Amino acid sequence: MTMEDSQVLRAIRDRRSAREFLDAPVEKKAIARIIEAGRLAASGANRQPWHFVVVDDPAIKRNLRSICEAAERSYYAKAPEELREWFAKHSISPSKPFLEVAPVLIAVFFDPHAPYAIPSVWIAIANMLLQATKEGLYSLPYTPTGAELGPALGVPESYSVAALLPIGHANRPVRQPRSPLPQVTSLNRYGVPFLSD
Amino acid sequence: MTMEDSQVLRAIRDRRSAREFLDAPVEKKAIARIIEAGRLAASGANRQPWHFVVVDDPAIKRNLRSICEAAERSYYAKAPEELREWFAKHSISPSKPFLEVAPVLIAVFFDPHAPYAIPSVWIAIANMLLQATKEGLYSLPYTPTGAELGPALGVPESYSVAALLPIGHANRPVRQPRSPLPQVTSLNRYGVPFLSD
Repeated sequence: MTMEDSQVLRAIRDRRSAREFLDAPVEKKAIARIIEAGRLAASGANRQPWHFVVVDDPAIKRNLRSICEAAERSYYAKAPEELREWFAKHSISPSKPFLEVAPVLIAVFFDPHAPYAIPSVWIAIANMLLQATKEGLYSLPYTPTGAELGPALGVPESYSVAALLPIGHANRPVRQPRSPLPQVTSLNRYGVPFLSD
Repeated sequence: MTMEDSQVLRAIRDRRSAREFLDAPVEKKAIARIIEAGRLAASGANRQPWHFVVVDDPAIKRNLRSICEAAERSYYAKAPEELREWFAKHSISPSKPFLEVAPVLIAVFFDPHAPYAIPSVWIAIANMLLQATKEGLYSLPYTPTGAELGPALGVPESYSVAALLPIGHANRPVRQPRSPLPQVTSLNRYGVPFLSD
């Protein structure tokens, strides 16, 4: 089935995760629009349980990288086999140079006690990923598992980190393939095709 | 600060949650494009841990409504005070007529054992909410807390439900206000303004 693309669908289709960024600056206004996309997201009880810390200071980026890599090393040691295989296949290791190379990081914090906090903050992040694509920029929804980034950025203890989004220019990365729509969709009952055409 | 809107940012800004739907049909192709927006989302290790069940059968919608309302009544009884106040203020009760009135529901299931399953499925849902807006349709990221919807739709036990998205036409609902950008954004350290202009 062919789909006529809206600009929204086109941004969704064009989006790619980058792990290798170019050493080229990013406009502050583009960053502002990316955060705007997050700020306007739906949230549980409209609590908007997020705070965005834009990091462009090289020393702070280096520090965040170092904190994340330490946490990654301990996470990898106990990651499920399946995930470690995927990491190996995609040359992903506990080393995260993109946290230092990308000109800007957006650290996305959230209040885990807000209602529906995790869905809310990930809706905001999804919006940000699309707006970055629209700006001709690349990102990656990097989740610093187990890393405590709040203290390094002076963020109140009541917040947790959801993601650290590197933002920058990149050589267009390859898109991972997706399962076709009929395979992931049913009509009224699991296994009944939604689209017969 | 004013932002020139891209079509992506405009869809984000235009999106509204609807709880009252009109009795007007929705095109199947629009539903397909909404699911397409979810299918193409980023996911942990590209596992695409989702399955979408489109429900347009009135008897099945009625059954899902009934299951959700039973779960809601038990959830409300133990919800935090703050959330119950917000519900009351917005006339939200355990009664969920939109699950029956909306012409289509998309039940979004996911495999909770996939890596980064919850972030992944909520990125997909965020994309779907935007594409619905782009189609001139309304939705609501309704999370059927505590409700087991899998058995009613024949979905394998390995899946959990993330959201039940009513999709339809609606009288344009009022948008909830958002905190201004400077209030939710810092530069390099919490509390340092990102935008001085």
